[in-house]
Amino acid sequence: MMVGKLYGLGVGPGDPELVTLKAHRILQSCKVVAYPAPDEGDSFARSIVETHLPEDVTEICMRVPMRVERFPAQDVYDEGAVEIAEHLKTGRDVAVLCEGDPFFYGSFMYVFERLARDYPCEIVPGVNSLSACASSLARPLTARNDVLTVLPGPLDDNTLRDHINSSDSIAIMKVGRHLPRLRGLLADMGLTAQSGYVERASLPNQVVLPLADAPEKAPYFSMILIYKGQEDWLREWPVAAGGHL
Amino acid sequence: MMVGKLYGLGVGPGDPELVTLKAHRILQSCKVVAYPAPDEGDSFARSIVETHLPEDVTEICMRVPMRVERFPAQDVYDEGAVEIAEHLKTGRDVAVLCEGDPFFYGSFMYVFERLARDYPCEIVPGVNSLSACASSLARPLTARNDVLTVLPGPLDDNTLRDHINSSDSIAIMKVGRHLPRLRGLLADMGLTAQSGYVERASLPNQVVLPLADAPEKAPYFSMILIYKGQEDWLREWPVAAGGHL
Repeated sequence: MMVGKLYGLGVGPGDPELVTLKAHRILQSCKVVAYPAPDEGDSFARSIVETHLPEDVTEICMRVPMRVERFPAQDVYDEGAVEIAEHLKTGRDVAVLCEGDPFFYGSFMYVFERLARDYPCEIVPGVNSLSACASSLARPLTARNDVLTVLPGPLDDNTLRDHINSSDSIAIMKVGRHLPRLRGLLADMGLTAQSGYVERASLPNQVVLPLADAPEKAPYFSMILIYKGQEDWLREWPVAAGGHL
Repeated sequence: MMVGKLYGLGVGPGDPELVTLKAHRILQSCKVVAYPAPDEGDSFARSIVETHLPEDVTEICMRVPMRVERFPAQDVYDEGAVEIAEHLKTGRDVAVLCEGDPFFYGSFMYVFERLARDYPCEIVPGVNSLSACASSLARPLTARNDVLTVLPGPLDDNTLRDHINSSDSIAIMKVGRHLPRLRGLLADMGLTAQSGYVERASLPNQVVLPLADAPEKAPYFSMILIYKGQEDWLREWPVAAGGHL
């Protein structure tokens, strides 16, 4: 008997229309989908493709407790992988829904590492949060020979400072509760005016602002983009352009 | 009279199925598309969406001569912008086709800077080459608090070395004629075994190999991914996994 195929399915940043034609086609034909969800409440990845799911699809919900980030809930992924494998063994394809892109700071790796040695696997890339936030801010992120660095917000100030100093464009991910500290750091570095803030990119309730006008509190899905390596025409361009374009 | 809207339309890395539903819808409704093309031959961006274009669409082809990269063909973009503006003035929307993502090392910025102050503009993000290549190599690019740096291949060895040393995951773009030098640098740094090579990601003729097995010559659309910041299970995972997954 043929085993099923495991799909790591990038579903994009949030707007259901930013799903690719390929992900959409695979969702139509998959009998089983799996996705992470918080302890309580809905899965963000599932919400993105809710309107694209067949009515009779079997769903595997992996409820991942919020713990310290460096210690993911391995038992949840162990159990999820066992459940996914049961379907693969009987020849059913399983699509694991990944917000953004499967391999860009995602949790899909925890499923992948448990199953990809034993079952055929295909990764379907999605629009990642970097491109989504740059589009929302409506200014070119990188050009020509710019160096772009992507930095998780939880990193310490010295590490962040060194990378920001040596790069032309910088994205700080997972801003969340680190926003006040990050804002202070960028003010110290004289980069506030060159920084933009985005939360919930591409969703109806997205927020796009110059960093100076960012709210006090940021959700987990928020990003700061710092534009250093751009031409003169960009320096004169208001950071808030994205807000009224 | 209402003016038309300028779209910066990300069409993904090459596979026509990696176009988003949104880009697909906009293409169906746009009366005018514009795109860059080389001196002679076809436009890559246009080829990606060829099967999605309406029959009666008006096409604006901006033929960009190959010059030194730091001096783009401003006159070509001047003329293209004038032609695009003529349509916008008469109320027609114009979609500028961008391979990958509009603001991720693309040429769309040259059109954007000429028109976005005067006309309504919407950027539609696409699957960028970073996510496409990571998917082709079939290993997680970044996780948790990894630092990811994107480096254009034409940069000098010292700049590359400093960034590679201080990052967990690294993407080297625009490898092309720099491949022999880059390969030497990564060998010196003891990183050959942790590096993968991808050309023409997601296209039927894509090449996915461990860097050690990369061909002598690389096309412009090629990338090296260096995986340093991964867990033990990844170190034991063969770089060539993408080839047979």
